[in-house]
Amino acid sequence: MHRGGFLESPTIAYETWGELQGKGDNAILLFTGLSPSAHAASSPENPAAGWWEDMIGSGLPLDTDRYFVICINSLGSCFGSTGPADIDPATGERYRLNYPVLTLEDVAEGGYEVLRHLDIGKLHTTVGASMGGMSALAFCVRHPDVSERMLSMSAATRALPFAIAVRSLQREMIIKDPKWDNGNYDPEDSPVSGQRLARKLGMMTYRSSEEWDQRFGRERISFEEHSSNPFYGDFSVEAYLENHANKFTGQFDANCYLYLSRASDLFDLAEHGGSLKAGFAKLELQRALVIGVTTDILFPLRQQEELAAGLKAVVPEVEFVRLECLKGHDSFLVEMDAFRPVIGRFFETFNI
Amino acid sequence: MHRGGFLESPTIAYETWGELQGKGDNAILLFTGLSPSAHAASSPENPAAGWWEDMIGSGLPLDTDRYFVICINSLGSCFGSTGPADIDPATGERYRLNYPVLTLEDVAEGGYEVLRHLDIGKLHTTVGASMGGMSALAFCVRHPDVSERMLSMSAATRALPFAIAVRSLQREMIIKDPKWDNGNYDPEDSPVSGQRLARKLGMMTYRSSEEWDQRFGRERISFEEHSSNPFYGDFSVEAYLENHANKFTGQFDANCYLYLSRASDLFDLAEHGGSLKAGFAKLELQRALVIGVTTDILFPLRQQEELAAGLKAVVPEVEFVRLECLKGHDSFLVEMDAFRPVIGRFFETFNI
Repeated sequence: MHRGGFLESPTIAYETWGELQGKGDNAILLFTGLSPSAHAASSPENPAAGWWEDMIGSGLPLDTDRYFVICINSLGSCFGSTGPADIDPATGERYRLNYPVLTLEDVAEGGYEVLRHLDIGKLHTTVGASMGGMSALAFCVRHPDVSERMLSMSAATRALPFAIAVRSLQREMIIKDPKWDNGNYDPEDSPVSGQRLARKLGMMTYRSSEEWDQRFGRERISFEEHSSNPFYGDFSVEAYLENHANKFTGQFDANCYLYLSRASDLFDLAEHGGSLKAGFAKLELQRALVIGVTTDILFPLRQQEELAAGLKAVVPEVEFVRLECLKGHDSFLVEMDAFRPVIGRFFETFNI
Repeated sequence: MHRGGFLESPTIAYETWGELQGKGDNAILLFTGLSPSAHAASSPENPAAGWWEDMIGSGLPLDTDRYFVICINSLGSCFGSTGPADIDPATGERYRLNYPVLTLEDVAEGGYEVLRHLDIGKLHTTVGASMGGMSALAFCVRHPDVSERMLSMSAATRALPFAIAVRSLQREMIIKDPKWDNGNYDPEDSPVSGQRLARKLGMMTYRSSEEWDQRFGRERISFEEHSSNPFYGDFSVEAYLENHANKFTGQFDANCYLYLSRASDLFDLAEHGGSLKAGFAKLELQRALVIGVTTDILFPLRQQEELAAGLKAVVPEVEFVRLECLKGHDSFLVEMDAFRPVIGRFFETFNI
């Protein structure tokens, strides 16, 4: 592991779509945000819709008639890749807090090991959004000879204090839940109360206040739905957050969340060489596309501009696209009409 | 009370500075944000610095050589005015959740009762920032013949969904702390854990991410201070939030906080007459000053603009000042060099 320690024979879960050409001439490696699985799109083996269903497929921007797309479940997650919720073969017990410190460099290595397993020596493009954008950057810095192109969406060279504060508070909400029990919770009786609070704070930073003005305003929930708690639940926006927290609950292991959240804080391109400039200088990309959203408060536009400017100093072709989407950081998941044409144009241009 | 119920002989705590002229020709009524006491400035009786020490005094913008300044501790608070932490004379027990629903209209009436007590029939200016700005608006709508002028800072006509979501989550953090015990906590063993989380989220919305970029960047805390918790406390911004949470703890009663937080959500000028326009039309102000801060995410600039535009339709003289302060919503408390000249100019112009 990047910060010490090791995992014995870890598993990396991945899914692929399309047909590989050569040693990877048409291969796209996709890193995810903090919570998704490798199931980015439906497939014959798993027809359920994926988290980027409208982006990956025949005739879609990541066109599986032309490209071979690989999506990685991040190391440390709980959807197939080895994480703190898994059994440590050395002890026969779950890793829990004995899991070593996780970094996005380790997540990137997980992707690299999948390429080795698939006998892929080069990539057409490395892609990532949010935490996945930082993992993609970590990958391109550590393996500069593998990928000729990078597509970064709503990501950054490193987390700034507001995002660190948000995630630190989310982690504290879970840790302060007595059920967390220093990581030793019963998986059937996990710190759900803390996780629900953390998810609500997450939603508040994934969306934008402008979206909510339009969507909810001061709309009230109906009297029937009204909670008996006098301090909670008059307003539609409160019911919306409650519904989202309910959906998330039980889906994601608390310790895995803590490790991945921490990894997002720790990543810093400047640690690769001693400065951001030195980090950028390690890249051997030929082309990059950076997409940022004006209403993103978690990875704000100024961070997208910093990333694009740093890339421009070392990468021959860099395009920076500023999207005026209303849905904040989450726009890459939900504002498909804005993202599809930009990403489609990028991948169309190649003679694959 | 505005939404039903009553308090038997409530107390309203207030402090004054300067000498009253006539029936209130030089009187300024000041409503506070959610947490401050009536001690806005030092005085011979209480030489401790007040929360607006640099704004109120001889030669300062609220010049006590000329003006008579009254600051009100909000009804429902725990600094002298009757709140949920006080004894209900009907039962001999603390009110706790038997305290009636609190609104900012009730807070405004608290101010009005203080004026009656002081035999003040008119005000020179009603002043408030944040929640206090909404209380000032409630006061001017309910008693339009009392105040000729209003000064609103970083306030709004009503809360928008993002601010409601923030406060709803803060309340939930306290309510989910097992020590809250449906409001029946022992005051010596209160839901401090939930209150600390709520305070941290508060700080994240009171300041701005741009300020924190400059102030903390990715600075780490020293190894000696390092926490044993692997998911918390590497970064200076985390230590900053911890220190602020520690300072606040024990100062503010949890139930009082819940009631006042809820009151901030509930206030809506549009409820006075059926629409914002009808609410504004009730005002009989001659002059208003609205100050907003570009980096405020809790009461964003678009809400200051809405307030100023609504006032302009009915008030002869309205000035709107947009301040480019870095410190977000809290700027009125800490960016004195920006606020002092604007407020000073407003009060200088009168022949008092």
